Amino acid sequence: MKLITFRSGETTRLGVLDQDSVIDINKVLPEVPADMRAALVAGIDLTAAARKAVEKAGAADRQPLAALKLAPLIPSPGKTICLGLNYYDHAAESGREKPVYPWFFLRCDTSLLAHGEAALLPRVSDRFDYEAELAVVIGTRARHVKQEDALQHVYGYTCFNDMSVRDYQKRTPQWTIGKNFDRTGGFGPQLVTADELPAGAEGLRIQARLNGEVMQNADTKDMIWNVAETISLLSECVTLEPGDVIVMGTPAGVGQSRTPPVWMKHGDKIEIEIERVGLLVNTIEQEA
Amino acid sequence: MKLITFRSGETTRLGVLDQDSVIDINKVLPEVPADMRAALVAGIDLTAAARKAVEKAGAADRQPLAALKLAPLIPSPGKTICLGLNYYDHAAESGREKPVYPWFFLRCDTSLLAHGEAALLPRVSDRFDYEAELAVVIGTRARHVKQEDALQHVYGYTCFNDMSVRDYQKRTPQWTIGKNFDRTGGFGPQLVTADELPAGAEGLRIQARLNGEVMQNADTKDMIWNVAETISLLSECVTLEPGDVIVMGTPAGVGQSRTPPVWMKHGDKIEIEIERVGLLVNTIEQEA
Repeated sequence: MKLITFRSGETTRLGVLDQDSVIDINKVLPEVPADMRAALVAGIDLTAAARKAVEKAGAADRQPLAALKLAPLIPSPGKTICLGLNYYDHAAESGREKPVYPWFFLRCDTSLLAHGEAALLPRVSDRFDYEAELAVVIGTRARHVKQEDALQHVYGYTCFNDMSVRDYQKRTPQWTIGKNFDRTGGFGPQLVTADELPAGAEGLRIQARLNGEVMQNADTKDMIWNVAETISLLSECVTLEPGDVIVMGTPAGVGQSRTPPVWMKHGDKIEIEIERVGLLVNTIEQEA
Repeated sequence: MKLITFRSGETTRLGVLDQDSVIDINKVLPEVPADMRAALVAGIDLTAAARKAVEKAGAADRQPLAALKLAPLIPSPGKTICLGLNYYDHAAESGREKPVYPWFFLRCDTSLLAHGEAALLPRVSDRFDYEAELAVVIGTRARHVKQEDALQHVYGYTCFNDMSVRDYQKRTPQWTIGKNFDRTGGFGPQLVTADELPAGAEGLRIQARLNGEVMQNADTKDMIWNVAETISLLSECVTLEPGDVIVMGTPAGVGQSRTPPVWMKHGDKIEIEIERVGLLVNTIEQEA
C-alpha cells in the first residue's frame, strides 16, 4: 500500500493511494487516528485499514492526488535519526575515510518539509545543498534487536531530501545546526509499505535531479550500513518507537563536492527519486 | 511560580508548588491542558493559571510533593537543543580551544528522564558520565530575534543532567548517539518562571555532586554564550517554538577529565543543583 499525509485546513489526515486517486482513510474509517505515528503507536494495522478503506470507498470518497496539499509524511516523528557518510563514494568525495561507525545526528520537526512545498534558502547562507536519501519508518518498538530480526520493525519506506546549509554544518564538528534549518528536510511524498519492496529496500536506484539534471545516481545496495544493520546498531543505544524515522545517508554527487560547487538558488527545482518508492519534488524559495 | 509535571497512571498532569505541597492545576482548572508544552503552544498564561489554582485550591486539592512521582518536566518537547563546550574551563579540560560557535546537538524524547527516576547505565558501555546544566524552556515563538529581545521568549528555567556515554559520544565526530541513550537526560524537577530569577538566569551557582562529593562547581555567568545570545544565534537558523528546550552546556569537572576518570556505577546517586532553580536527583541503575 501507498500512504500519504495531506493537509485539511489546520490539521492533517491520512490517505491511501489507489492509482491516481486518494481515499481519505479517516473519513471512511473514523476510528483510525489521523496521524501515521499515532496510528502506529496505537498498534493499528494501518495496511489492513488502508485496504479496507479502498474497498469501502465510494466515488465520493476519492479525490485526485494532484488536488491535495501534502504534509511531511509524519509531521512530528518521535525522533528523526539521520546517518552521515553512509555511501563509500560520498565519504570519499567528502575527503573522509570509510567510517567505522555511522555518523548519527538528529533532525527536529521544524526542519521537515512536505512534497510540493518550497524549501527555504536561508537568509544567512547561500551554501544550500541537496542530499538524496532513503527514509525508513519504524512500525513497532525495537530495543536490542539482532540484525536478522531488525526488518520486522520496519513499517515502510519513503524519500528524504536532507538539505544542508553547508557553512553552518561545518562551523563546528557538530553538523546538527546545518541540518536543522526550517523547512529543509523534504519527507515524502508517500510511504510504501515494506511488503511491496525488496528486503531492506536494497537494490533500488536513488537519484537527485536539480532542474532536471542528474546530480546523484546510485543504488541503495551501496550503503555501508544497510537498514537492518542500522536498526540493530541504533537499538543498542535507544528505543526505536513506532513512527520514528531513520534517514539512511546520501551517495556521491552533492553540490559541495563539485568543481565549482553547485548551490541551490531561488526558483530551482530539486527532485529525489527512489525506484518503486517515489518522487519527492521541492522548489527553492529565498527567505524574505 | 514553580511548576512540575507529575505522573497520574499512564498520563501526566501539571502541578504548581506551594511550599511543600502541590496543587493539581488540571483538577482545579480543567480548561488548562495537562502538558506544559501544549499549554504554552495554546498561548495560555500558565503563570496566571498557576496563581489562580493556588488561590482556588482547597485542602483536598493539595498533595505533598514527596508523595508524587514526577515526569520529565516536558515529556515530549518540540525539540531539545543542547550546547557543547559552553564553559571555558570545560572546553579546556576537554582539550579544546575556545569554540567559535556553539556546538549544537539534539536530544530525543526517549533519552529524557524525570527527577527521582533511575538513570540507565547502558549494557554496552561503562563510560557513563554526568554533566550539570541549566535548561531553558521557551515560552513564545522566536525567529530572527535580536539578543536584546531574546529573553522575552523564555518562560522559565530548570536543571538538566546531560548524562553522556563517552565511548559512543566519541566513536565519530558526531556526539549525538552518546547523548541519546534511553533514560540519560535528567530534566527537572521543577520549572522556575523567569520572573523569579536574574535575567538569563545569570550569576547562579551550578553544581554536580556524585554520592555527595562536589564534582562540578561553577557560576552560570561563566557560560561563553549566555541565554540571550544563544536564543538569538539559534533563531537565525530555526524557529523556536513554545515548549522547546535549550540545554546550556556544562562547566569543568566531568568524570572523563579526571585522573583517573570517574564513571558512574550502579547504585550511585547523582545530584545537579542550581541556586534558586532546583535540585535534580537521580540514581544509576545497571541495564539488565
